[in-house]
Amino acid sequence: MKKITILGATGSIGIGALDVVAKNPKKFKVVALTAGGNIKELARQIALFKPSVAACATKQAAGELKRLTGNSRTRILYGASGIEEAAASPRADIVLSAISGAAGLKPTLAAIEAGKTIALAHKETLVAAGQIVTRRAKKKKVMILPVDSEHSAIFQCLSGQKKNLLKRLILTASGGPFYNLTQAGLKKVTVAQALRHPRWKMGKKITVDSASLMNKGLEVIEARWLFDVDISRIDVLIHPQSVVHSLVEMIDGSVLAQLGIADMRIAIAYALAYPQRIQNDLPALDLSKEGRLDFYPPDLRRFPCLELAFEAGRRGGAVPAVMNAANEIAVGAFLEEKIRFVDLPDIIARVMSRCPAVKNPSLADVLAADGEARRQANQAIEQMKRG
Amino acid sequence: MKKITILGATGSIGIGALDVVAKNPKKFKVVALTAGGNIKELARQIALFKPSVAACATKQAAGELKRLTGNSRTRILYGASGIEEAAASPRADIVLSAISGAAGLKPTLAAIEAGKTIALAHKETLVAAGQIVTRRAKKKKVMILPVDSEHSAIFQCLSGQKKNLLKRLILTASGGPFYNLTQAGLKKVTVAQALRHPRWKMGKKITVDSASLMNKGLEVIEARWLFDVDISRIDVLIHPQSVVHSLVEMIDGSVLAQLGIADMRIAIAYALAYPQRIQNDLPALDLSKEGRLDFYPPDLRRFPCLELAFEAGRRGGAVPAVMNAANEIAVGAFLEEKIRFVDLPDIIARVMSRCPAVKNPSLADVLAADGEARRQANQAIEQMKRG
Repeated sequence: MKKITILGATGSIGIGALDVVAKNPKKFKVVALTAGGNIKELARQIALFKPSVAACATKQAAGELKRLTGNSRTRILYGASGIEEAAASPRADIVLSAISGAAGLKPTLAAIEAGKTIALAHKETLVAAGQIVTRRAKKKKVMILPVDSEHSAIFQCLSGQKKNLLKRLILTASGGPFYNLTQAGLKKVTVAQALRHPRWKMGKKITVDSASLMNKGLEVIEARWLFDVDISRIDVLIHPQSVVHSLVEMIDGSVLAQLGIADMRIAIAYALAYPQRIQNDLPALDLSKEGRLDFYPPDLRRFPCLELAFEAGRRGGAVPAVMNAANEIAVGAFLEEKIRFVDLPDIIARVMSRCPAVKNPSLADVLAADGEARRQANQAIEQMKRG
Repeated sequence: MKKITILGATGSIGIGALDVVAKNPKKFKVVALTAGGNIKELARQIALFKPSVAACATKQAAGELKRLTGNSRTRILYGASGIEEAAASPRADIVLSAISGAAGLKPTLAAIEAGKTIALAHKETLVAAGQIVTRRAKKKKVMILPVDSEHSAIFQCLSGQKKNLLKRLILTASGGPFYNLTQAGLKKVTVAQALRHPRWKMGKKITVDSASLMNKGLEVIEARWLFDVDISRIDVLIHPQSVVHSLVEMIDGSVLAQLGIADMRIAIAYALAYPQRIQNDLPALDLSKEGRLDFYPPDLRRFPCLELAFEAGRRGGAVPAVMNAANEIAVGAFLEEKIRFVDLPDIIARVMSRCPAVKNPSLADVLAADGEARRQANQAIEQMKRG
């Protein structure tokens, strides 16, 4: 029986993971859960999975949670320290890190310091602090198992392959809902349209990132750290059907790929059960029903966020953290209809252009750069509204 | 430096393998070569690769070979015993078994008995005597590495995967040159048309087998033995572009695939270099240039040879050997324009229907069934010509 902590239990990945746990009660036991705002869902999860510990963002939320869970035996913590304590909970074998955004960084580091295997479902931790996180994981001999379907695909393709025989990684991208729009069409995109992803059901932030291709850019940087491969050896391929989740090319020209239906529970279950696999009741992939798979190169002119991410990855240091922070703020402003969809890359580029070059940044440097980038992004958004 | 014996050196696989050797002179050394009829090519190869031993089919051919190679130091053998002696040549690390048809069986067994790693490029050995061959290989702790692109793909996908987590194998088939013909169209097919394979450059026999889908049927049975998977867990998928060489489905619905350009030297080099991979000067697969990949289920009504192979695989015993022998004779008759393309399955089915059920056949049983099937197939062809 594997003991699991879930950071970000009420998001789409957390809920998917709990579905996997519920269907495999002999294989998994939940020991800790954390959530940000959705206290009702967290209370429901506590009643069902009876974790030893639960943590939420604020003291007020913790009070509400206590009221909702009544006389449950779950110990309730709150605040950054509470979430980090839950992340390091000594009873867990594996910590699923699924807190959206850069907020996941510190709890993930706390879990690594506590020697837990990490199932990493949010990319911002590696984007912002890939070098720091992978170095600490190596020191603590902690394995980081990817949960993103693309990275899970690459991880699966590479198992059994010699690292020195790898030529390049190829991340596939659905292209999102706007891939066939012209530049003029992109200017008129609404929030509702951006939230209608053609293939994957996901949270709001990541769905907008998918539409702008920034999500793929974040994944490129994540892959760079997860698999210790230089950015120059990572490519992106548009594949609207999202059946091929990603590929690796070996030095002999042989290409290995992982394919599947678009259900995140497969990658979640893979990471939780690793090195085992578990059967599920999901429909099997039927390629003869899919019929046709398409592939084309990404259009960086219409989707400059992807190019910005490659640039951030090449520049390194704190630049990816800055790009990620600016993107979080810009996506938030877009969701609040303060800026247009096409303004996203402009704001991010503006903030990135002011980012100082910091080589081998410390965690404090990264967090400072992240904070400064958020301030600048907000400023840029205000200027844009006024202009 | 790996020392290599090539059985069937003058066929398309043999020539491809020698191209790999020639380009990697520090990695490989040829120690023995065998060929059937093409003495001129064998003489040329002896001059270039200077093997210790060479063997050909007849005493007459050996005389001709001696004349052509002049004062080379290569020892020249002939006949079945000569070819088997070359196959067991003590200096080899690995034996590439690429003799077309059931004639490859005994030399391959000789190489296994001598404890050589086998790179298996002809499928008939496993089709005719899969149980015997895999049992002997296991006893001798000999590894059988597939060279067929489909089986190489499956082998690569399965490395690093736990065998008990495998659900099924999916072999892709280009469908051959006639896949879009109607039944009426198939009746008019000429030999020249059958030899024009849309994707792969191969020998005549295998090219006709590709057109009838018997090649895929033989591969199903080969896969059954190579990977020790029941026939019921092996599927075939038509994939005209031949970019996805084959796939495996794991119990969690995750599908792993190997892709590449249609050049047999990649699978040949993979088997020879295993567990390494070697760089080559072949063009890389560019999926964005391929653009589109199609998949559909095979039409067993128009291509009954595939159904016959599944039936032979299910019936087991000597039935696959009988089917294979009848197919070899029938394809020979088609190439000599004695029968039509659509007569192939009729002749094979007729011979199979008369095949006695032999459980756990010995090698002698298999060879006797093979001989009897050839006799019956020739008889069926004569009857057909008369009728």
